[in-house]
Parts: sequence; structure tokens; C-alpha cells
Amino acid sequence: MNKLYVVGIGPGEKEQMTLKALHTLEKAEVIAGYGVYVDLVKELFPEKEYLVTPMRREADRCRMAIDAALEGKSVAVISSGDAGVYGMAGLVLELAEGKDVTVEVISGVTAALSGGAVLGAPLTHDFAVISLSDLLTPWEKIEKRLLLAARADFGIALYNPSSHRRADYLRRACEIILTEKPEQTVCGVVRNIGREGESMEVMTLGQLKDYKADMFSTVFIGNSQTREISGRMVTPRGYKDV
Amino acid sequence: MNKLYVVGIGPGEKEQMTLKALHTLEKAEVIAGYGVYVDLVKELFPEKEYLVTPMRREADRCRMAIDAALEGKSVAVISSGDAGVYGMAGLVLELAEGKDVTVEVISGVTAALSGGAVLGAPLTHDFAVISLSDLLTPWEKIEKRLLLAARADFGIALYNPSSHRRADYLRRACEIILTEKPEQTVCGVVRNIGREGESMEVMTLGQLKDYKADMFSTVFIGNSQTREISGRMVTPRGYKDV
Repeated sequence: MNKLYVVGIGPGEKEQMTLKALHTLEKAEVIAGYGVYVDLVKELFPEKEYLVTPMRREADRCRMAIDAALEGKSVAVISSGDAGVYGMAGLVLELAEGKDVTVEVISGVTAALSGGAVLGAPLTHDFAVISLSDLLTPWEKIEKRLLLAARADFGIALYNPSSHRRADYLRRACEIILTEKPEQTVCGVVRNIGREGESMEVMTLGQLKDYKADMFSTVFIGNSQTREISGRMVTPRGYKDV
Repeated sequence: MNKLYVVGIGPGEKEQMTLKALHTLEKAEVIAGYGVYVDLVKELFPEKEYLVTPMRREADRCRMAIDAALEGKSVAVISSGDAGVYGMAGLVLELAEGKDVTVEVISGVTAALSGGAVLGAPLTHDFAVISLSDLLTPWEKIEKRLLLAARADFGIALYNPSSHRRADYLRRACEIILTEKPEQTVCGVVRNIGREGESMEVMTLGQLKDYKADMFSTVFIGNSQTREISGRMVTPRGYKDV
């Protein structure tokens, strides 16, 4: 049976890959991915055959990878972060249905975790991950999830908080969350996680509403217990009081 | 400035650690953790000094680690999965407040990701992570989060779905979710992620209600789009139709 790997490479730097991800890429003959992430992997493994398609041509890229696997090649499809969180694992499994190929998914550190570590520990307790991109999801559904996640007092990680086309989406998300959480709620933003220029900032939900996020930002909204401690964003679980 | 590392070691096997986690443990003189996870790390690094306390003595263990760091030792506190998701990062940051020690958190692959990879891609779209342990959280708060997460159509990962004392908690959680999601909702259970005896099962929400989970299980509940494909649990993001 032919085998196809879908590999989460983490936030970018080699150090934040899992050993399994690194070893799978080492063994692969063909690596398929989106330009930016392929460039990162190419630095480590310049000698491989690369299948690259632009953004929004994800399905074409996965079909090319499946075809290469069907030819008996060892193929890895890469995703940034975790392959299963807004990544390629689901699409590859859909497209491989009924074909003579076994799909193995290799997980990686998604931005909620790698960005959370930079801030401190914003997601210690129950949390939700929500993407503000309405490219593949109706905005009404995103709004509903924001509202209910805030009402449930989840810590929240927001992916894709902004783009040129969606410059005011973070503000709109904060306005919805502010109907359920106080302005003083502790929030944080991490930029360029695991890459050059990595930075973080802790702020209130009121300040976040006016923050200019960019496409390299991941946003964290605390729950009712989240505090700023020594400049870090920390959600206690309650161990201290046991 | 003294430095203290809080390291997420992933699900258990060395291959699923990040390079950064492995290198940090290599360099550490002292490693602090809970018995089961210390045993896993001890196999890799038998020569270290280990600080071990039983479950529910987490604060004592972190204080011992901070004291060792204040003596100038290189210390790593380990957590299974990610150090920030129900892990030790928050507690260490709380207890280190005002002390002459800088805390660096090193993230790892949490069970929502490593277990998700075994099942396929259950959490491709927006998702929530909820622990069913009411040791540190009132059950009413957990119930509210289950209900609102189901109403928001999140994919859901349930941690700590069962224990001796809480044998019927998964059933109670499913009953709440069934008020918002149909019985046919695709669900999955992964046991012993990244360890000997790793296994997975895909089932419906109606079947999950009667499933006997144990403390080595992580449970996944699909959203309205989740499907079973070739025996795997897959939540499409929508790329296929672009």
C-alpha cells in the first residue's frame, strides 16, 4: 500500500518541529506545500522534489501529492502548525478516499500553543480556537461562535485576525466578545511566532478592540480568571489553592 | 537572572517531542514532574536529578523547582502534552511572581492534536477543548461549556473523560451535547496516544454515550460537517469546493 504523510511543521523554526516531523521530511522524496512553508523546509532539505501551488489551490496541490504517492514515491504534504488545525490533513483524507494510499497524519505545534508559550500560559483551562477568516466560513457562523465562546467563559485563541480585505474583523470580533466579557479582560497578541521578529504584547480587551493586528498575529483572549503576571498572560487552573 | 523551563513533552514517545523540548531536557541538571511522565523522560536521561511529587502536590513540586533554579541550577518542569494546556506553565508563572527567575515555556503537542492525528482530522475547523475533571472546576461550569460549545457547532476534544470516581461523566456530557447535536454526529476515541497499545475508534454520538472511556482516553466530537472517511474521522474545512 502506498503511503502519504501529512506533516505539521510547527510555527516555522526547525527547533519547534517534532522529531517525527523532521524524520518524515528527511525520508520523503517529494514535499508538497504552500510557498512560504516550502521555503522554510527547503533550507533544511534543499535536495528534495518540491510540489508548490499558490494559496487557494490547496486541492490541486493535494491531488498532485496523492498522484505522486500512487506512483510509489515517498511524499509528505506540509502544513504550518498542526496538520489538523485549519491544515491539509482533512483535505488529503477527503481526496484520497477510495484510492490505493494510506494517509498518516503527523501532528505539530499549532499557534494556540506556540504563541501561548510566548505569552506565558493563556490557555491553561478550557479554551476555543476560532479563525476570523470568512473565506470558507460564513461570517454569521463566526459571530455566533465568538458570542457563545465568550458566554461559556472559554479562553479564546483567534487565528487569521486580519488581512487587507478584513482590516476591521478583529474590532468586530472584540465588539461581540465585549457583550459577554468586561473591557478589563486580559488579552495578548503574539507576532511572528518562532520566526525572526517574534514579539508579544499583553493588553486589555478594550485595548485589543483598537489594536491593528496583521496576518502574522495570533490573538489570545483570557477567561474570567486570566491575569497579567510579571508582564505575561496567565490563566490559572486552580492548582495553587488545592 | 536564573532561568526556569516549563517543557511540554507531548503524548509520551520521544519521536513526538519537539527538538526544543528534547534539547532543553538534555541541558537541564534538574527535571521536575509527575511520576508517570518522569519515568518516560528518565529512560532518555537517566543521569539527571529528578524532583518528583505525587498528583495533587503540583504546587509543592513547582516550588521545589523554583528553589532549585534560584540556587543557579538549570531546571526543567515537565508536563505531558503542552505545558500550557491543563499543564504546569500557569502555576509556575504564578509561583515565580516577584522572584529572581525568568520562566520560559516550551510548547508541545497536546492530546487534541496528537489524538486528532490518529483519528484523521477531527478538528480542522473551529474547536473547543474541555476537561471533564471537576477536581478544580465546578461541574455546573463544565456543563455550561459543553452546552454552549455544542450550540456553537464547535468540534470538541474532551480531556479526562473518565476516572473511577467519575465513571458516568462522559455519559452526562453526551446527554448535554445531544440536546444540541444529532445522535448521528461523528465522534472518535483515541487511547494511549503515542504509547504502547495506541488505538482509535470512530462511532456516533449516540454510541459514545454508552462508551466506557478510561483515563487513557481522549474523546472527539465532530461538528455538523464531520464525516467518517475510510474509517477515519474527518472535519472538512471547505477547501475541496473552492
